[in-house]
Amino acid sequence: MTGEPKPLILNLFEMNTVSHITHGLWPLEGNQRHRFNELSYWTELAQILEHGGFTGVFLADVVGAYDTFRGGPETAIREGLQIPSNDPLLVIPAMAAVTERIGFGATFSTSYEPPFAFARRMSTLDHLTNGRVGWNIVTSYLKNAARNFGLDDQIPHDRRYEIADEFLDVVYKLWEGSWDDDAVVVDRERGVYSDPEGVRYIDHVGEHFRVAGPHLASPSRQRTPVLFQATGSPAGIEFAGRHAEVVFTGGRTAEDFRRNARGMREAAVRHGRSGDDLRCIVQAGVVVGRTEEEAQDRWREYRRRTSIDGILAHASLPVDLTAYPRETPIDVVLRGEPAITGRFQLPPGGTVGEVLDKLVGGREGRYFVVGTPTVVADEIERWLDEDGIDGINLRQYHSFDTARDFADLVVPELRRRGRLRDGDGLTLREQLFGAGRARLPEHHIAARYRGGRNLDVPVEPLRFGAPV
Amino acid sequence: MTGEPKPLILNLFEMNTVSHITHGLWPLEGNQRHRFNELSYWTELAQILEHGGFTGVFLADVVGAYDTFRGGPETAIREGLQIPSNDPLLVIPAMAAVTERIGFGATFSTSYEPPFAFARRMSTLDHLTNGRVGWNIVTSYLKNAARNFGLDDQIPHDRRYEIADEFLDVVYKLWEGSWDDDAVVVDRERGVYSDPEGVRYIDHVGEHFRVAGPHLASPSRQRTPVLFQATGSPAGIEFAGRHAEVVFTGGRTAEDFRRNARGMREAAVRHGRSGDDLRCIVQAGVVVGRTEEEAQDRWREYRRRTSIDGILAHASLPVDLTAYPRETPIDVVLRGEPAITGRFQLPPGGTVGEVLDKLVGGREGRYFVVGTPTVVADEIERWLDEDGIDGINLRQYHSFDTARDFADLVVPELRRRGRLRDGDGLTLREQLFGAGRARLPEHHIAARYRGGRNLDVPVEPLRFGAPV
Repeated sequence: MTGEPKPLILNLFEMNTVSHITHGLWPLEGNQRHRFNELSYWTELAQILEHGGFTGVFLADVVGAYDTFRGGPETAIREGLQIPSNDPLLVIPAMAAVTERIGFGATFSTSYEPPFAFARRMSTLDHLTNGRVGWNIVTSYLKNAARNFGLDDQIPHDRRYEIADEFLDVVYKLWEGSWDDDAVVVDRERGVYSDPEGVRYIDHVGEHFRVAGPHLASPSRQRTPVLFQATGSPAGIEFAGRHAEVVFTGGRTAEDFRRNARGMREAAVRHGRSGDDLRCIVQAGVVVGRTEEEAQDRWREYRRRTSIDGILAHASLPVDLTAYPRETPIDVVLRGEPAITGRFQLPPGGTVGEVLDKLVGGREGRYFVVGTPTVVADEIERWLDEDGIDGINLRQYHSFDTARDFADLVVPELRRRGRLRDGDGLTLREQLFGAGRARLPEHHIAARYRGGRNLDVPVEPLRFGAPV
Repeated sequence: MTGEPKPLILNLFEMNTVSHITHGLWPLEGNQRHRFNELSYWTELAQILEHGGFTGVFLADVVGAYDTFRGGPETAIREGLQIPSNDPLLVIPAMAAVTERIGFGATFSTSYEPPFAFARRMSTLDHLTNGRVGWNIVTSYLKNAARNFGLDDQIPHDRRYEIADEFLDVVYKLWEGSWDDDAVVVDRERGVYSDPEGVRYIDHVGEHFRVAGPHLASPSRQRTPVLFQATGSPAGIEFAGRHAEVVFTGGRTAEDFRRNARGMREAAVRHGRSGDDLRCIVQAGVVVGRTEEEAQDRWREYRRRTSIDGILAHASLPVDLTAYPRETPIDVVLRGEPAITGRFQLPPGGTVGEVLDKLVGGREGRYFVVGTPTVVADEIERWLDEDGIDGINLRQYHSFDTARDFADLVVPELRRRGRLRDGDGLTLREQLFGAGRARLPEHHIAARYRGGRNLDVPVEPLRFGAPV
């Protein structure tokens, strides 16, 4: 390798709930997850991340219960599996109040709530954090979520992405087009706060939304928050190509990841952007110890305590695999139902035991390492240099041990190797793309509205054919 | 008088914007209002209130621009008149992070956003603040707001209240009925976070909303936030009688106030509640000085700087009165348009000059005092004892001078007279109604859903006849 080593984007993966993805672990000794309702949980965590060298914290969200497994929400409720869960946006101002640098990514769905109010919420957060927020664009996959917002069932997958595409068009108009940079003048002598010449209605009229504007919030440091997205479907990839700046992707092998990332970057190029306008991030599991033995002991304990019920309920399986002998052919169990619905799409065939093993062990894969700080740093460097990942969302097994141990043991090692950038004074977008890039680049579709241009020129909507 | 003196509920009236109601004053020397985008504005203010003996801070909101006056939003934009304005809920967690006692009232409209997501946001805030939040229920009166949410025009007034009534029914089911008090068990041994027996769907099916539940948030300290409302219309009074715990009312004379308050309390009694279940609060203007002269100088300066354009734009007048000679009969100017639309309903007749004087001087009235701490405290005691008010929303002329001067000069005087209660460790509802009353009383309509009772028994909806 020549030149500067590639830096790591280091996010903690969080959710405003008890059991996010490592089910069965909240009762571990010292685990603080049960405190998620308390403000001090979030301010403590934020300080650990700020002083520990993290780029930011990334907050997942759902707006419904996992109620498919065993025909109801009982397992999820028992496990604390994303229920109870609280609003993710509202912990950000508290974390911002005790930090100055870390970024905040928050999940919000484009399927059920009006874009006007959401645009103002994100502008408010971008103001309050001085440019440190990102938005994870999701379209919601839980059936119960649809039923919480007046629908009988989910909107079909590709249709959700079409709605999302128009939702983005609306919020771009509000964020980028409604106020000019120099509209806020704060002229005390003349008593003029903003110059009306620089503020305008957006008058959006589309298939799904009609929004007049003007945007109520003035331009924040980033205007449009950093746009995150997780997807694998053809519709989702096309959507990411047009909109996303950071994609959560993954793969069970380096080749898997490279193929996925390549697909995303090609989609970006199709939409007039550069492949380098995307950052590809993977969810990673890291169990570190001062010694190899300590690390392995921890991992054994985490594995031993992992809740299979929690994983199965999270996977939204239509049947309870634990009720069958392991050697039962999976086809017999499913009797024509889709192999695995929801988040985990497995190929049909095999036995109950094989599917269970795959689900339970499924979080390990390529982006998982157990070991000493040196072993962990070596592995992360491999992900960066061989696979080409840009960063990780660090899975939490234990709060706050996972973050604290990473900060105390791995971060100094990564720093020695030049793998972590100092982000002081930067916006989140600058932390990800470099100083001077607080706002979306000119070739991003949102930029077309700057200065109020093109507000009356409809964008070609994304259209997807048959359901994927 | 015998017994304990009646205590004062002392709220600061705020809004996440530049110019809330005292238009023209943001450029005053030392006024910090232009900093409303910054997190430190809110944390500084919260600490002033916490240490200054305030009960809480009350945040107004609108979700549209004032764009009627002179046919557009230009005046509002120039004046900073509620535009730019940011989301009110998002500053609460930051203020909560630096305080332990003060309450937070936030405005949210029932007309445009789904109840499920809002219910979770308020539960999140009640958790994060440990029971210190209230909700100011509004139905939105700005035409531009309707156009930001897909409508061509406002929903008619009484219809908005009918929708609000069902909105309340939905959120009561989520807040009071979906989770039992003992549902969250946090049993580390058995790995059970919540007991599914105590958590249920609400399956609300109404005229305006269909919401399945379960509520995603577990029961917070207050469950239902303290319910605030401001109204004067027959529909609004009936609505308050069923739902509100604190009403913003007023009057130009003591008799006005007493009549209004009596009307509210009678409405409460009609809905099976006690007149004492309502707290009646007025907006008050207080200009205090160490000497009478200092106070009068300040008031003269505030008056001199007041923006008539700001007041007229805020009043959403259909015509520009400043374009006519003062002696012009108002009927000539209006030519059949409603006398004064929007917030200020004036009787027809009189001259342009008379209407202008009434609008500009309209904030003084009964609940306004200029003077030394003794004069101010005497006057407030009169409002409490003679009129029967329960508290005030203190209008800000200058941020933070208004709050700081009240805290430094008036609060010690009110304390000496036994007019301020210590609220340490209490929820907001307890600060208003007494220790032990963290939750709504049993005879409030929301209580019918406790323990999951009555979720399938429809409530009689409020119906209003002809538009008021």
